[in-house]
Amino acid sequence: MKECIIRPIGIVKNKVDTEILKYANNDIELDPKRIKSSRHTFDTSEIIIYDEYLECLDGIEDFSHLMIIYWTHKTPVHARSIKKVHPAGLKSMPIKGVFATRSPVRPNPLALSSVRLLECKENILIVEGLDAINGSPVLDIKPHLPSYDSPLNVKIADWMYAIGEQFKELHENGKNKFNSAYPHTDMRSHPCISDEQKL
Amino acid sequence: MKECIIRPIGIVKNKVDTEILKYANNDIELDPKRIKSSRHTFDTSEIIIYDEYLECLDGIEDFSHLMIIYWTHKTPVHARSIKKVHPAGLKSMPIKGVFATRSPVRPNPLALSSVRLLECKENILIVEGLDAINGSPVLDIKPHLPSYDSPLNVKIADWMYAIGEQFKELHENGKNKFNSAYPHTDMRSHPCISDEQKL
Repeated sequence: MKECIIRPIGIVKNKVDTEILKYANNDIELDPKRIKSSRHTFDTSEIIIYDEYLECLDGIEDFSHLMIIYWTHKTPVHARSIKKVHPAGLKSMPIKGVFATRSPVRPNPLALSSVRLLECKENILIVEGLDAINGSPVLDIKPHLPSYDSPLNVKIADWMYAIGEQFKELHENGKNKFNSAYPHTDMRSHPCISDEQKL
Repeated sequence: MKECIIRPIGIVKNKVDTEILKYANNDIELDPKRIKSSRHTFDTSEIIIYDEYLECLDGIEDFSHLMIIYWTHKTPVHARSIKKVHPAGLKSMPIKGVFATRSPVRPNPLALSSVRLLECKENILIVEGLDAINGSPVLDIKPHLPSYDSPLNVKIADWMYAIGEQFKELHENGKNKFNSAYPHTDMRSHPCISDEQKL
């Protein structure tokens, strides 16, 4: 199979107009303004589902959390050839392959965000924690099932913890309510992290 | 944006040649042979990454778990118009919108599976728990980050628990080592499930 054709099933509406991480000079770049701004993606967003897919939502309110697959539409087409980046756009981090990062710049600019469903009003999902900017095309929505989607005894790269620390520092300097890229809990105290990596 | 063009970055190799859930008669159908077979998708799979994306893997071995986005390529194109299905293909379940299910039949047949990374040998990832059949095109690979991807205090639909029970029963009747669709732990005892829904 050479190509898959995907048609957006909806669009994100929120107050976030600029990307926190974006393509620049064959790498990704962190926007320090976004970190210090009170407008961040972990506020509430609306997902407007196009009318023809309205029926696909039936029963979705029985789940507290959803997984949203969306398109990082600001990634320029030529950036899809980038293979390695500085994780989180931090030049102090070792350069890594994009599949080892959550870079928005990747061969297929698909992004995945787990969100809390606050309300479903006809064709509008009101969600918390969507890490997408205003206007992002939404490609798929799935219920989040812990026993299927949240493996236990997980280990992550040491440099990923270092990013968490650096974001926390940037936040504290900005004296703002920035949630870090990891909104749900402290990285090392999460119940799914392996005992070896726990705090 | 009308369409997103995605090019597979790799392909799944395993011993599973038939889908456990497939399109049939405007709905999805469960293959009872697959449930009773010892060949199931929760065995080991290989993900063969195409040469041009080899560099994208650099650093991936620092993570124990990955999220694989793949294409359910056996879903016929006309089935993408299906809006509701019987969850897990079980006619005893109430019919639900596909966005409230993990049906392989959906407007954009994207699937998402969290896997354990056993080994990375050049362009081959050996993984455990990939819920895909042989030959599935792989579209993206991301590191699994519990604090970002595994929300806490999750509630899921009662009918989803009922599916888990029914799968367990089918397995016991089949007297085989079928893992159920939920390989990691019992659905209700998972640490991320809300206290209300815990066993």
